[in-house]
Amino acid sequence: MTDPMIYPVPGIRLATAAAGIRYKNRDDLLLIELAEGGTAAAVFTRNAFCAAPVTLAREHLAAGAPRYLLINAGNANAGTGRTGMVAARETCRIAAEAAGCAPEQVLPFSTGVIGQDLPTEPFSRALPGLVDGLAEDAWPVAARAIMTTDTVPKLASRRISVAGKPVTITGICKGSGMIHPDMATMLGYVATDAALPAPLAQQALVAAVQPSFNSITVDGDTSTNDACVLLASGKSGASIDSLDSDAGRAFQQALSEVCYELARSIVLDGEGATKLVEIVVETAASEEEARQVAFTVAHSPLVKTALFASDPNWGRILAAVGRAGLSELDIDAVQVWLDDTRIVCDGGRDPAYTEQAGKAVLSKPAFQIRVALARGTASTKVLTCDLSFDYVKINAEYRS
Amino acid sequence: MTDPMIYPVPGIRLATAAAGIRYKNRDDLLLIELAEGGTAAAVFTRNAFCAAPVTLAREHLAAGAPRYLLINAGNANAGTGRTGMVAARETCRIAAEAAGCAPEQVLPFSTGVIGQDLPTEPFSRALPGLVDGLAEDAWPVAARAIMTTDTVPKLASRRISVAGKPVTITGICKGSGMIHPDMATMLGYVATDAALPAPLAQQALVAAVQPSFNSITVDGDTSTNDACVLLASGKSGASIDSLDSDAGRAFQQALSEVCYELARSIVLDGEGATKLVEIVVETAASEEEARQVAFTVAHSPLVKTALFASDPNWGRILAAVGRAGLSELDIDAVQVWLDDTRIVCDGGRDPAYTEQAGKAVLSKPAFQIRVALARGTASTKVLTCDLSFDYVKINAEYRS
Repeated sequence: MTDPMIYPVPGIRLATAAAGIRYKNRDDLLLIELAEGGTAAAVFTRNAFCAAPVTLAREHLAAGAPRYLLINAGNANAGTGRTGMVAARETCRIAAEAAGCAPEQVLPFSTGVIGQDLPTEPFSRALPGLVDGLAEDAWPVAARAIMTTDTVPKLASRRISVAGKPVTITGICKGSGMIHPDMATMLGYVATDAALPAPLAQQALVAAVQPSFNSITVDGDTSTNDACVLLASGKSGASIDSLDSDAGRAFQQALSEVCYELARSIVLDGEGATKLVEIVVETAASEEEARQVAFTVAHSPLVKTALFASDPNWGRILAAVGRAGLSELDIDAVQVWLDDTRIVCDGGRDPAYTEQAGKAVLSKPAFQIRVALARGTASTKVLTCDLSFDYVKINAEYRS
Repeated sequence: MTDPMIYPVPGIRLATAAAGIRYKNRDDLLLIELAEGGTAAAVFTRNAFCAAPVTLAREHLAAGAPRYLLINAGNANAGTGRTGMVAARETCRIAAEAAGCAPEQVLPFSTGVIGQDLPTEPFSRALPGLVDGLAEDAWPVAARAIMTTDTVPKLASRRISVAGKPVTITGICKGSGMIHPDMATMLGYVATDAALPAPLAQQALVAAVQPSFNSITVDGDTSTNDACVLLASGKSGASIDSLDSDAGRAFQQALSEVCYELARSIVLDGEGATKLVEIVVETAASEEEARQVAFTVAHSPLVKTALFASDPNWGRILAAVGRAGLSELDIDAVQVWLDDTRIVCDGGRDPAYTEQAGKAVLSKPAFQIRVALARGTASTKVLTCDLSFDYVKINAEYRS
């Protein structure tokens, strides 16, 4: 995947460093600065074993005046008990001292191996240089600095016009395995130079995250460190005062597009993934049951290995739909398509379906599985990938 | 695994044939006969897309006088719509004609590929010979005839004494992938020569199935064809009139042991499995939440690949516990052990834990992961296996 055009965001500066926390010879520490007067919004993992930095970032965000995001890769500082919380607080103190702000104005984030103590000396050594090196055009190196098992950096950018003023939205994220975000992503940072009151920023972020980061899965494992942040510097001079206005809707759409593009890039780079698969469930009784069915199909190891083999093994899809827990599902009314090829109707194989037609769809690098339940009007879309030898190889070898 | 001693069951006869339904040069059809006056009980899959034979077996069981079980391997007759139901009825008619009983006295079962029409001519050709060949000592060949991706036949047997009379319980099952039984197993057939009224047989079977077949998982995929049957011929002359008596308790225990041993053999033969892992969740607020946590750990691809690698990656176990959906889980009170080695306490690594100790446990072919939640007194046990290269290989190549 080639990087699309990435626009800097006035009022947002970034800097990276090779702090040597876990990796050698690569950047693993990122500092993001939000201009004074800007606002921030964030969503975090719902995993009960959330990491120390998640707890602390939530606390510091609530304090109300965030200026810096401090992100390290290679060590998740999760499952580290009280020691982990002490370390997270210390990294904020170090950053605050270097940047000349209060520790509560620093939001910490960590990603990497769970259960190892996070050393703080690398932070002490790197922070002064990071503050000095802050620059608006550092998004591409920032995207690289937060990678763990990711094989490509992930960025997305949009420019829209609000009341005649150009407004930019740019974001980065990381994530490849342990991907089944629940109200957040692995780590995602999106910034804009529009001015948004904090509650509005939060509302726009939640709306953008649901159909993007919250609708992807690689392996169904919700991370301990998921977080997605929106920073709004206000430097464009354009203000969003309501999401229910032309400007608000345009902003929401661009923000949602950036989040979707970032989320999609996580699945594309899913551990061992060879195929990008969109699962659409439609005519469901509720969005909740549509998501239930979509994620059951998306998490089925049998469906995922069939996708890897380009085997149109629709019986496995049917079996997954059947075990998704829907009460009184009329199986004779269920239909399933691979792209535009219908494979199932009336509870069995479509008489017009041919194995070759199914195989042709599944041999493509990206395609859609569409399930119609004939129970109502709700629908949902989930992005996932296949389960390959390489997923097992990567996760039998890597310490996440 | 070597076959344990398998006792024939007076009043139960079996016969197998190579009917050529899908496989070449191997038995793929099994007929089991229950002596006149015997009783039968069964539990079936809860997958909404249950196969035609499941629907029909349920219907015939309710009719009340089952005499024959007819089981084919290689074709699941699932996802086959009306055609599948017609074929299932026809196989019962063929068997009834050969055996001289009513079609409603034949319970049909199928396992194998989903979504292919089941041919009935092989049944017509094979049934007369099957009826002629019925014998009490055919349990071992019967266990082989129902295999699909199984690599070993699965049998278990117990002999107890009821009121001075020897009572036998013998069973077979099959299953290797698409294993996450819900109220049943892939296919399990257990028979006894005790006499049990049908409601009591049903009650005993349900009690035996819950901690055995319903507490195992290979890949979380509940099959469309799961079924487990208990046949009671009464030929021992011993009667079980209540499960709440010495005889009833002894019978229940032996039946539960047979079911557990069969269920365990399915996980041992799990597709690509290299390790047998018992997951114990204790001090839970309810059995339901204990099972929720146990299955979340058992289904986590990240946990399973770590087990495959003999990597004591307890962070992944913690992450799975954390995303199991328990409200107000006090993570600082959670403890985790690998066999007797405690790895987690106070929300982080046990200070006394060493990587070598964890590695030593995970290098064994069988071990326990124990999670204490400190929320109550309920507990559960679930059996699972690891996720290896071979699971992907088998399922990318095999049509289930």
